[in-house]
Amino acid sequence: MVAVGEGAGDEPKVVKRIATSSDAAATLREVIAFFRDHGPVSAVGVATFGPVDFRQGTISTTPKEGWAHCPVRAILQRELNVPVGFDTDVNGAALAEARHGSGRGAKSLVYVTVGTGIGGGAIIADRPVHGLLHPEMGHLPVRLHPEEPAGFKGVCPYHGNCLEGSASGPAIEARWGKPAIQLPPEHLAWSIEGDYLAQACLSMSVILSPERIVLGGGVMDQPHLLALVRTRLAELNRGYIPLPELSAPGLKYPGLTGAFVLAEEELR
Amino acid sequence: MVAVGEGAGDEPKVVKRIATSSDAAATLREVIAFFRDHGPVSAVGVATFGPVDFRQGTISTTPKEGWAHCPVRAILQRELNVPVGFDTDVNGAALAEARHGSGRGAKSLVYVTVGTGIGGGAIIADRPVHGLLHPEMGHLPVRLHPEEPAGFKGVCPYHGNCLEGSASGPAIEARWGKPAIQLPPEHLAWSIEGDYLAQACLSMSVILSPERIVLGGGVMDQPHLLALVRTRLAELNRGYIPLPELSAPGLKYPGLTGAFVLAEEELR
Repeated sequence: MVAVGEGAGDEPKVVKRIATSSDAAATLREVIAFFRDHGPVSAVGVATFGPVDFRQGTISTTPKEGWAHCPVRAILQRELNVPVGFDTDVNGAALAEARHGSGRGAKSLVYVTVGTGIGGGAIIADRPVHGLLHPEMGHLPVRLHPEEPAGFKGVCPYHGNCLEGSASGPAIEARWGKPAIQLPPEHLAWSIEGDYLAQACLSMSVILSPERIVLGGGVMDQPHLLALVRTRLAELNRGYIPLPELSAPGLKYPGLTGAFVLAEEELR
Repeated sequence: MVAVGEGAGDEPKVVKRIATSSDAAATLREVIAFFRDHGPVSAVGVATFGPVDFRQGTISTTPKEGWAHCPVRAILQRELNVPVGFDTDVNGAALAEARHGSGRGAKSLVYVTVGTGIGGGAIIADRPVHGLLHPEMGHLPVRLHPEEPAGFKGVCPYHGNCLEGSASGPAIEARWGKPAIQLPPEHLAWSIEGDYLAQACLSMSVILSPERIVLGGGVMDQPHLLALVRTRLAELNRGYIPLPELSAPGLKYPGLTGAFVLAEEELR
């Protein structure tokens, strides 16, 4: 998705969906043409699927066909001749939610997306967390739920029943034989889901102590789930640490707004 | 422990142990007298047991008798009339190890102490992590080890078998009926211990992606344990993310050096 606009906090002026084809160069040509048609732009922000290499400004070892080691930042800089901010989609979303979304004003925030995969981005001291790599929160170890159906081993090809292997949309579908959206709110599926997500929120809280955790993504569209996670997190914590606020995203497209924030930061 | 010196990277000039008595005011009078006798000092750094309140500069809700809500920073500032840097002991230790210890030059680092309790501090972008509170990594949820002796419920009064409840010195002693130091290196105790610590390191890695994790504290004095944690962490990760270096502390007193760094930061 690409967009042009004035400020990260405002509605974008033009938004366009461009499919991420397996021909990375062609996709980027389409992106560049969009910015030329609707520009000139003074800066570009990229909030991309990962993993990324921040030093090089590249997608790194993605299994996504055609994109491994693609020098996205360098290509955009060269073709558009403007500064390019570059981060992961979830770090961008976390930045956007902290500046303009449901965590407005928070200096520390985690954004988690629960959908076909699980990803997380984090803001500490008002900046996205970069270390050796970037957060890869989908692969948090979680404790097996006591009512986990016998024989369910999780769907993560690396770790089996890590967070993503236990609580992503595909994990729910593999466990119950139907997609999450077809499971009624009183189904056991949801207390198991709430437990895994609450464990993840507790791990994030004891490691980072964020002021807020924003939970987005398709699985979180089930309106009862956020309250289940909140309740279970309080049970698991047992009053030990002050807990972050849990909330739904405040922005329609947190990643897109994140890209605008990343662009703005380049102009400071 | 109190000390005076020139630079955080140098040997301190004078070091003294002052017991943390239940009379906080008397303990602080002794601390202030030490600085007056060996000063004048240009700044003070405090790396203290927690939990702390950074805004107030106080110890907050500690069960340690006499210290709850003690305004340590304000008292030292008033009596010594110098700037006072103030953080947790483990954030201080993390800062010290990143600047002068085994992680010298790292911009992101976690310091974990495994002893009578388990605590962790973290540095991201060269600064200690402060959020709603500070890291409380001892209370990470961990997955039950399959060979955990039946009936062992963990020793954490809040969470039972969280990381601290499963892997602290008292947990080892409660599980096996003797202290860690009396258990030979081939004892099952150590593979269980290595697994819990490796799970914690994996959680820290997927959330923070630190360049290095420094493992200190009395339990880590068992010379074979660090290698066990490193091996188990690689097994759990299954090649998914780049892993941090694991190392022993490079400093004799990481917390004390941390206090010097905190003092120096006040003079920048």
